[in-house]
Amino acid sequence: MINKIEHLGIAVTSLAESNKLFADLLGVQPYKEEGVESESVITSFFKLGESKVELLESVEGKGAIAQYLEKRGPGIHHVALDVTDIEFELNRLQGLGFQLIHAQPKPGADGKKIAFLHPKTTNGVLIELCEDMNPA
Amino acid sequence: MINKIEHLGIAVTSLAESNKLFADLLGVQPYKEEGVESESVITSFFKLGESKVELLESVEGKGAIAQYLEKRGPGIHHVALDVTDIEFELNRLQGLGFQLIHAQPKPGADGKKIAFLHPKTTNGVLIELCEDMNPA
Repeated sequence: MINKIEHLGIAVTSLAESNKLFADLLGVQPYKEEGVESESVITSFFKLGESKVELLESVEGKGAIAQYLEKRGPGIHHVALDVTDIEFELNRLQGLGFQLIHAQPKPGADGKKIAFLHPKTTNGVLIELCEDMNPA
Repeated sequence: MINKIEHLGIAVTSLAESNKLFADLLGVQPYKEEGVESESVITSFFKLGESKVELLESVEGKGAIAQYLEKRGPGIHHVALDVTDIEFELNRLQGLGFQLIHAQPKPGADGKKIAFLHPKTTNGVLIELCEDMNPA
């Protein structure tokens, strides 16, 4: 079951500047800032209804976000979908012909299990699936 | 007040093919298909939690979606945010330095009032504001 948009991931060149921009735009402050060393990013999060906006700045010009910024400039990097059972969805989607970047979920921030689908088979949209291991 | 992600607008080359793709991905069928003559597009809509996914195919190679597809290929074209009072938000955002594509809201599909912000001042993200004139 795919439940909702968990978050929109937006690549930014300066977290400080974009924090101000999105706080102005959305009328709320970011509720969290967090580094993800394995991805070479620092991130901040804004609440937006049942979803979130995640800003991603690359650290030391490394990783997927640095590559994205170089190729495309700032903008929407990925869409994360909240799912009830990530293993089930990965099997289901692979069976339907979707190409998986991660055949098995990996640990993400916030105690989530995450996996990405390749944008080649999802209409150019990089999609992250995530399962909350501690649902409210 | 900015309430939630109303929809994600995704540019596609073939509505028929992408309808199947997103029905497979999301596990639901599109609930509506609609032409918007003024924008030279045909659209379809999928429910996703409190938000929607809108697929946009250009008609006769005209309009903003045709331009986007030519430049970037299929992918996320815009994010629409549901707001309580669109005139208030446009004034507020203009005062904060955001560049408006539409200074006044215009009629959109579904009895909504809509207006776009220029991606130059929103971190490369094309943002649509929309106010539901017939909230449930």
